[in-house]
Amino acid sequence: MKLTKYLSVGAALTLLPTFALAQDAAPSFDEIGPYIMTTLLFLVGGFLVFWMAAGFAMLEAGLVRSKNVAMQLTKNIALFSIAAIMYWLVGFNLMYPGDFNGYFALNFVPTVLEPVGLSASDAALDYASVASDFFFQLMFVAATASIVSGALAERIKLWPFLIFVVILTGLMYPISGSWQWGGGWLSELGFSDFAGSTIVHSVGGWAALAGALILGPRLGKYKDGKTVPMPGSNLALATLGTFILWLGWFGFNGGSQLAAGTVGDITDVGRIFANTNMAASAGAVTALILTQILYKKVDLTMVLNGALAGLVSITAEPLAPSLFGALLTGAVGGVIVVFTVPMLDKFKIDDVVGAIPVHLFAGIWGTLAVAFYTGNWGAQITGIIAYGVFTFVISLVVWTILKGVMGIRVTEEAEINGLDMAELGMEAYPDFSKG
Amino acid sequence: MKLTKYLSVGAALTLLPTFALAQDAAPSFDEIGPYIMTTLLFLVGGFLVFWMAAGFAMLEAGLVRSKNVAMQLTKNIALFSIAAIMYWLVGFNLMYPGDFNGYFALNFVPTVLEPVGLSASDAALDYASVASDFFFQLMFVAATASIVSGALAERIKLWPFLIFVVILTGLMYPISGSWQWGGGWLSELGFSDFAGSTIVHSVGGWAALAGALILGPRLGKYKDGKTVPMPGSNLALATLGTFILWLGWFGFNGGSQLAAGTVGDITDVGRIFANTNMAASAGAVTALILTQILYKKVDLTMVLNGALAGLVSITAEPLAPSLFGALLTGAVGGVIVVFTVPMLDKFKIDDVVGAIPVHLFAGIWGTLAVAFYTGNWGAQITGIIAYGVFTFVISLVVWTILKGVMGIRVTEEAEINGLDMAELGMEAYPDFSKG
Amino acid sequence: MKLTKYLSVGAALTLLPTFALAQDAAPSFDEIGPYIMTTLLFLVGGFLVFWMAAGFAMLEAGLVRSKNVAMQLTKNIALFSIAAIMYWLVGFNLMYPGDFNGYFALNFVPTVLEPVGLSASDAALDYASVASDFFFQLMFVAATASIVSGALAERIKLWPFLIFVVILTGLMYPISGSWQWGGGWLSELGFSDFAGSTIVHSVGGWAALAGALILGPRLGKYKDGKTVPMPGSNLALATLGTFILWLGWFGFNGGSQLAAGTVGDITDVGRIFANTNMAASAGAVTALILTQILYKKVDLTMVLNGALAGLVSITAEPLAPSLFGALLTGAVGGVIVVFTVPMLDKFKIDDVVGAIPVHLFAGIWGTLAVAFYTGNWGAQITGIIAYGVFTFVISLVVWTILKGVMGIRVTEEAEINGLDMAELGMEAYPDFSKG
Repeated sequence: MKLTKYLSVGAALTLLPTFALAQDAAPSFDEIGPYIMTTLLFLVGGFLVFWMAAGFAMLEAGLVRSKNVAMQLTKNIALFSIAAIMYWLVGFNLMYPGDFNGYFALNFVPTVLEPVGLSASDAALDYASVASDFFFQLMFVAATASIVSGALAERIKLWPFLIFVVILTGLMYPISGSWQWGGGWLSELGFSDFAGSTIVHSVGGWAALAGALILGPRLGKYKDGKTVPMPGSNLALATLGTFILWLGWFGFNGGSQLAAGTVGDITDVGRIFANTNMAASAGAVTALILTQILYKKVDLTMVLNGALAGLVSITAEPLAPSLFGALLTGAVGGVIVVFTVPMLDKFKIDDVVGAIPVHLFAGIWGTLAVAFYTGNWGAQITGIIAYGVFTFVISLVVWTILKGVMGIRVTEEAEINGLDMAELGMEAYPDFSKG
Repeated sequence: MKLTKYLSVGAALTLLPTFALAQDAAPSFDEIGPYIMTTLLFLVGGFLVFWMAAGFAMLEAGLVRSKNVAMQLTKNIALFSIAAIMYWLVGFNLMYPGDFNGYFALNFVPTVLEPVGLSASDAALDYASVASDFFFQLMFVAATASIVSGALAERIKLWPFLIFVVILTGLMYPISGSWQWGGGWLSELGFSDFAGSTIVHSVGGWAALAGALILGPRLGKYKDGKTVPMPGSNLALATLGTFILWLGWFGFNGGSQLAAGTVGDITDVGRIFANTNMAASAGAVTALILTQILYKKVDLTMVLNGALAGLVSITAEPLAPSLFGALLTGAVGGVIVVFTVPMLDKFKIDDVVGAIPVHLFAGIWGTLAVAFYTGNWGAQITGIIAYGVFTFVISLVVWTILKGVMGIRVTEEAEINGLDMAELGMEAYPDFSKG
Repeated sequence: MKLTKYLSVGAALTLLPTFALAQDAAPSFDEIGPYIMTTLLFLVGGFLVFWMAAGFAMLEAGLVRSKNVAMQLTKNIALFSIAAIMYWLVGFNLMYPGDFNGYFALNFVPTVLEPVGLSASDAALDYASVASDFFFQLMFVAATASIVSGALAERIKLWPFLIFVVILTGLMYPISGSWQWGGGWLSELGFSDFAGSTIVHSVGGWAALAGALILGPRLGKYKDGKTVPMPGSNLALATLGTFILWLGWFGFNGGSQLAAGTVGDITDVGRIFANTNMAASAGAVTALILTQILYKKVDLTMVLNGALAGLVSITAEPLAPSLFGALLTGAVGGVIVVFTVPMLDKFKIDDVVGAIPVHLFAGIWGTLAVAFYTGNWGAQITGIIAYGVFTFVISLVVWTILKGVMGIRVTEEAEINGLDMAELGMEAYPDFSKG
């Protein structure tokens, strides 16, 4: 659970004097071992979640048409970089402000790391290094932004999108995140979201949904009441992206144990790994079987999204379930994707990569399912609604302003010719004839 | 060596009362450090071996023709997911049954993990968490199934293949695995296979060979006594897949040390990493030089398979050799690949990606080579034959039954048009003209 | 800092008798914990840096034209394998010779690892296992060679290039590396290069620059005083490669802390991770904004190279800067790339992937910038010049000899038709029509 984190980050600053270790003797591993192991957990977990940025990039590059691939790649590397800077500049301290009113912290200060060569007596020995914690947490905000880029692909302008990313990663995500992981009002209420089915994935999904509504569908996507398929240009990349995300998710969920230096904690991390893998597998197999039954043909992109929906579903509670519970949780995620992808098309909401079914709908399911373990249905529903209303409404406002001020959609001509040539002046695959 | 594992898994259930740690005092790192480090080894090793699933997917997607890429990707993500579920459902407990007759354990029960927040007094402190062990081991069974999918690519139907995967991962692999890693008759005999040259790789290779024989070669592969080259559609993906497998292999072999919490164990893990890397490098360089000499041109796919053959070769004993020994072991693997790939074609056995030379032939070599260190040639040969006969015969039977009951081969028309459109109704690269 | 490493490697051989641990009692974690953690750091750091080999391969395969992709892949897997063998054969002991004259050690012996099952009393408990150290260090030399392959792509013959790699990885890199990391004259002088902005990246860049001068530009690259764009064939691969390199860099810089078993060391590793990520992000965002301003269009390949230049820039000192310092360091790297890529073209120096701006120019900047923290400008400048003169001059000589003896450039016909068909007789993407 991320609940206690905000205490510890504060502890590094406020509780230091209370550590009265003798400076003369080297501290024993009984004192420092947990700190070292948890810091290591954040570093390994962090680089795994970093890797998810590549996963989103490959998934999205594989699912857009070839004429928009370079733009999708540009958006992905840019959004990650911007998220990293914004989270340092204001996000991290907005999200983990220490003692605050529970709703919003006026804590607009950049992140400061510990000094080089920290001594054990100056360290938050009950937790981990601030740098490792910061490194781990910033990867999560980047994931949120990646979700948006996939849904709005193939028609949004680069710079308005990046401005939205600035606001999402610097303000929206950290403020709503502080309600729970920063020790705010939702954590007081008993809401539970272990690694972020809601706080990360649904938030990304809500922002994407608002954007998709304001932006409108791609040209020609809905014609005479029918949905025109616009198949992705490179399913090998999309599959690679899915495998990368799956791998990164071990860090996403496992690292969110926030401790690795006791028998109980490291064993729990193992349990989380096993459950995470099971939910992904169950989501994939469910989509495999369902698409065979419904369409008489297996749909690879549904299988990929089934695996991802399984992962999102288990993210709110990857620790408590048994392996069988994880299987059920992930399987429901797979069902959700198979039924809600065409449903969105019915409403003419054009989500290029299926990000809204995977991250928003499966995220809601996963967050709700936590109540099977906690019993606190009220808190789960409150949290889901709170994140939804906050993120969706603010996103609507921001997208509307961006639309009014600078326009968020490329010209028809640019959309038809592809954003790569129109906005970047380059192609992703210049050597190959288009079919 | 994996030999002692079955004891430890049992230990978590049976030996717990003998740990008489005081519940009051926090256990010291001297007591819990090795458990934490070994659990961490399994988690890191496990995610690295998980990553090999992506490696097989990319390697195979790169080596099939573009019309069959989406199918190959579907098979790979599906087989991994099925393996994960089957190994939980029956595989893990069939393979590590604790005390059993040494040949076959009637132990058809799903895997159960430790409770959340395990206390040190309830943990198998001489080993690692059950969840981490399960997580690590299930990645190996998935590798076995991946080997089969590569060899049988471009002509096998999706569902019969997946049914075979169910049987392979739920029954065949775990039962034969129990003979050695479960403490069965082969481990009693002194057979040695550190990380699975035979138990994982040759088993996959034998199952693939049986399938290739029953299935027959691709249409037009052997014509008028000649082998018609059918080049892979994307060598960049194939190379990426090879690098992914190489990376994953550090977890595959290193994690198989099964311990990381003493100076001796962590040093051994380092030795295994260095030897594994050396064998892969030697296999690649050998294939590079040999193809230059034999064909006057370097063959990239041979170099890739040379690296993989080096990796398979060192897998049976990555610890004992010196770096020079590892170089020799891997180099022989490279030689094997260069000479046996065309040999299979002579016998009209159509192995699309070279899986049989890499995993079966180099696996036999690697397993035999262990006897240079143990001296026990009889045990090594017995083990190689036992795994070969068991896996090959049962695979032949299963493939034959599947062929009779539902057919295992797509229609000629589907094969010519590509499995992607015929079986999935989608293409991997729809935007690009085919040359 | 890598400064103390040569002591420790020697320590494993010479100081062993001074460890007088009781053989009877198991050593406590206070004694062995740091050794275990640092060994683990090298293993995790090492596999991350290994992964960079895949990153270079994908980056370069994506940035060359499709007719040269298979050759670029072949070069990358071959150069890694050769580097691994050469560094074992002579490199490692040339670079870390223990006590030597500070300029050149006559220490031509292959690397020998510790025995299996090392006891704590025989281990260099103040450092890490030799195998893990060797594994980690050899990954760095491979990175150096990868830099060369990118710059000289699309026109150099395979075998002369590989012979250069033999000399670079077996002799040039280890000898100049010993000046600093082996405890030689530059380390005596106070030169500082934490993880190798100069020792790894600039050395690769100097060797590449010498090669580019001797080899000449690609046919048709500079025509009538104009630079003809030759766009890369697969920007998705190039982006993937960049993300892989970024991920691997956490191991590159983080592992170069060379210790992880104290509060100070593991906290420093976390600081390095955070700074490394910040510098990459700043480099990418800088190139994003600059190309928009200068060219009115964002240039994806510049953004990718901006991220990489940020990473190279922070490599000489990833620990001392604050996050803001890391941002500035990386941003300057991004500026350098945007301005020096066209500058090289002005001088008709044809660097296919931008390796010289990224690795040489940003490497010089990063190394210089260390003096903001150490104040020792003289030592930094001396080091930069020493590595430059040594590597550039010897490279010029070697390339010239290779050119005279066997020729280093493919025929005009081969260059026009592509190196894949001419030198390998295979294509990377045979199924796709060329546009």
